[in-house]
Amino acid sequence: MANERHPFDIATDLEQEGDDSWIARTSDAYWNMVGPFGGLVAALLFKSAFSHPDREGEPLALTVNFCAAIAKGEMQITARPARTNRSTQHWTMTMFQAGECVATATAMFGKRPETFAGRPVEPPIVPSLESLPRMPWPGSGWIERFDLRFAEGEPFWANQREEPSSARSTLWIASDPPRPMDFVGLAALTDIFFGRIIHVRQRMVPFGTVTLTSYFHATENDLAELGSNPILGTADARIFDRGFHDQSAELWSGDGRLLATSHQLVYYRDPA
Amino acid sequence: MANERHPFDIATDLEQEGDDSWIARTSDAYWNMVGPFGGLVAALLFKSAFSHPDREGEPLALTVNFCAAIAKGEMQITARPARTNRSTQHWTMTMFQAGECVATATAMFGKRPETFAGRPVEPPIVPSLESLPRMPWPGSGWIERFDLRFAEGEPFWANQREEPSSARSTLWIASDPPRPMDFVGLAALTDIFFGRIIHVRQRMVPFGTVTLTSYFHATENDLAELGSNPILGTADARIFDRGFHDQSAELWSGDGRLLATSHQLVYYRDPA
Repeated sequence: MANERHPFDIATDLEQEGDDSWIARTSDAYWNMVGPFGGLVAALLFKSAFSHPDREGEPLALTVNFCAAIAKGEMQITARPARTNRSTQHWTMTMFQAGECVATATAMFGKRPETFAGRPVEPPIVPSLESLPRMPWPGSGWIERFDLRFAEGEPFWANQREEPSSARSTLWIASDPPRPMDFVGLAALTDIFFGRIIHVRQRMVPFGTVTLTSYFHATENDLAELGSNPILGTADARIFDRGFHDQSAELWSGDGRLLATSHQLVYYRDPA
Repeated sequence: MANERHPFDIATDLEQEGDDSWIARTSDAYWNMVGPFGGLVAALLFKSAFSHPDREGEPLALTVNFCAAIAKGEMQITARPARTNRSTQHWTMTMFQAGECVATATAMFGKRPETFAGRPVEPPIVPSLESLPRMPWPGSGWIERFDLRFAEGEPFWANQREEPSSARSTLWIASDPPRPMDFVGLAALTDIFFGRIIHVRQRMVPFGTVTLTSYFHATENDLAELGSNPILGTADARIFDRGFHDQSAELWSGDGRLLATSHQLVYYRDPA
């Protein structure tokens, strides 16, 4: 039905509770194996500040700390401005469940005047989305909500390789069903990349993002121009050591605009 | 004098005010042109959680949001655990001055069991510290506290090049006077790299870090082994656009251990 709401919009609904507080509810459509898709948690915390009437300026940065497992049900979110300057604004957010903190976050917004611009990094060169197969996924939940097509570094269940394998993946990402790009959606996409540990080890191990920082390089106007076109993403890691690895990602438009970069620390348990 | 305290230890002194609150004071020895060295602000916020008696585990991640200019004088710092799990712990910190928020921060600590380890990134290959000249600095303040020796991408006042120039720098970093490495010192070093904008533009423009995220890959034992040996650092950027650029850095031991990585968003004003 043309008027049916997109499952992502339903999953990111915020019900106002007080001036600076909201109730959100977990969504089976974006459920992971043991909790909500991390990108959805990031999107909810981002949205609580972004949609606040006191918010001023374009999104610039978001940090989300995933403090504990989240169970199915309600989440209580607060978002408050920590400091408002002439051209920048800083926010602090929290997510609680059953009286316990499950996530903390900060966000930054600001004016984006025209200045010198430059881009030392180049977009990845990849085959067209149409020429690549969709990543198979036998399960349910959030991964079904995305049409992922790997140009490089597909996961082990799509193409088993010798381990240790490369930490790098490059892929086309399209929402399924399609959804016009906006900042809440982009915030979610900054956490769409699987923990690099399972690419390197070529098998499933216990892992989870513990902290995620995203920088936004596009404006609302830039995103409006994207419509529901697919996004090109790339993710890599620098180091895996004693239970944690880092991970950095880039999100590009199909025509070569760098929309966002993100960095995260991932917990893993994988005996040597 | 052998017993004289290092200026960095004086600059990072925290005077207990309450269970979760401290007073710090700005230091002329680590003053920047218009405020404290950002790395010192990061170090103070980090130390407030790290030195708290309730802190459990090794340092893993630190995010500092620089919300406003800091004047000379006292800073009020709070640090509280947001969530303590069996193997990880999350903290929230704030810094106020004259009743206004000037910085917010989060930190994460955790146990670091032996696991699979790997390191896709290689240390930079550079000439020895002794074979490189110390970066000249005609001014005073925090830059005098470090012996910086560039192997690549020295700033314009040391070697003027055509602009736009490379955003990448690689340099040896030694504290002056020498100081044994520890996590408070490492937290400061994650913000030691000049904003990439002045390397690219080959001239001074107004700039400042607005948010910094650091990931720690070393343990307390690893840092104790370093003593006061110099650190090898590298910094680069992906994109400069409409008033902000990103920046990523690596800090290495001289014998090739990746100690920390950091990412930041930098405000700049530089007409096209």
